[in-house]
Amino acid sequence: MEHKEISKAVIQRLPRYYRYLEDLMDQGIERISSGDLSRRMHLTASQIRQDLNNFGGFGQQGYGYNVFNLHEEIAKILKIDQVHSMIIVGAGHLGLALSNYTNFRKRGFDIKGVFDNNPKVIGQEAGGVKVSPMSEMKDIVEKNHIRLAALCIPKDAAVKIVDDLISYGVRGFWNFAHVDLEVPEHVVVENVHLSESLMRLSYRVFEEQ
Amino acid sequence: MEHKEISKAVIQRLPRYYRYLEDLMDQGIERISSGDLSRRMHLTASQIRQDLNNFGGFGQQGYGYNVFNLHEEIAKILKIDQVHSMIIVGAGHLGLALSNYTNFRKRGFDIKGVFDNNPKVIGQEAGGVKVSPMSEMKDIVEKNHIRLAALCIPKDAAVKIVDDLISYGVRGFWNFAHVDLEVPEHVVVENVHLSESLMRLSYRVFEEQ
Repeated sequence: MEHKEISKAVIQRLPRYYRYLEDLMDQGIERISSGDLSRRMHLTASQIRQDLNNFGGFGQQGYGYNVFNLHEEIAKILKIDQVHSMIIVGAGHLGLALSNYTNFRKRGFDIKGVFDNNPKVIGQEAGGVKVSPMSEMKDIVEKNHIRLAALCIPKDAAVKIVDDLISYGVRGFWNFAHVDLEVPEHVVVENVHLSESLMRLSYRVFEEQ
Repeated sequence: MEHKEISKAVIQRLPRYYRYLEDLMDQGIERISSGDLSRRMHLTASQIRQDLNNFGGFGQQGYGYNVFNLHEEIAKILKIDQVHSMIIVGAGHLGLALSNYTNFRKRGFDIKGVFDNNPKVIGQEAGGVKVSPMSEMKDIVEKNHIRLAALCIPKDAAVKIVDDLISYGVRGFWNFAHVDLEVPEHVVVENVHLSESLMRLSYRVFEEQ
């Protein structure tokens, strides 16, 4: 099916729809009305209809949405109907946490390598792969045509490694280092700045006091 | 100093300013112009002046901003000039990663307890505290008047534990479980949905292909 141009705002919301549809499938629910979905997701029914209409919309008056079809369609749009190879740089607790998330594998993210320079962790098992030394990164990234890298290393190390990884072929960084990376235009960065997120939480909790 | 009402959009941006100012202080830089800061942060100088004017603005024509004062002022607004006690629920890799972030301590977040039900991890050291059994959570939260809890447990467990934690006094959840928590109005949730973030990254990398 051909899709109209879908706005960035809608794309931003699709992963959340995807998660809810997954939960519905897990519960054995085969179809759902926009009203029911709106109550679960705390969105208005018209917002949902508007969002889902963007890609043909599987909703039918009086029937609602076919959960499986909608789930599959969103997977296609988000390109998670394909398997994406990725690497994880840094095998500290955070790197290990990411390596062990079965959810990522379920969504088609295949971790081809976990890298660290610490001799204590090299060779250890991390979510099904062995931690390799950084020196093997180039080889593994190039051989497997890897485009995605999670950076779970301190900010100075992250800044230093980015250009190398781009030269090996990486096009997207999932950045957990507390620094904004400078990358060329054809490279994408998705930041997860945990301490900023914690500061926002604490502001919202304590602002009234 | 009294602050005007600061908009939510500005508040959302303050943690990022705070991080940049921290970096400048680490580099021994005492003052900075809005132009220089705008180049580093990839914002326009007028956006920066507008944001920082919200709280009196420490910028002076021809001098720029006093880095230390501005840093301190933002800390006050974000309430991180005070120490906030928190707990971490779940001592898997992610919980341990959070326990070990020295950045949080530096910003005044004091981890008073890390909890898990797994006998293998209870008693182990996690960033300076010992992992305690879940049964001790109530006592520690109440005694220390803890308002913040990070949830690093599976979604079903997270959903089950939220009401208990609220009854002990928790008012803010830093939620890493892949579920949207239902909480009363006086309670705040900051979500870190990692798999949604990874899906957004992969969409942006592969959308053109």
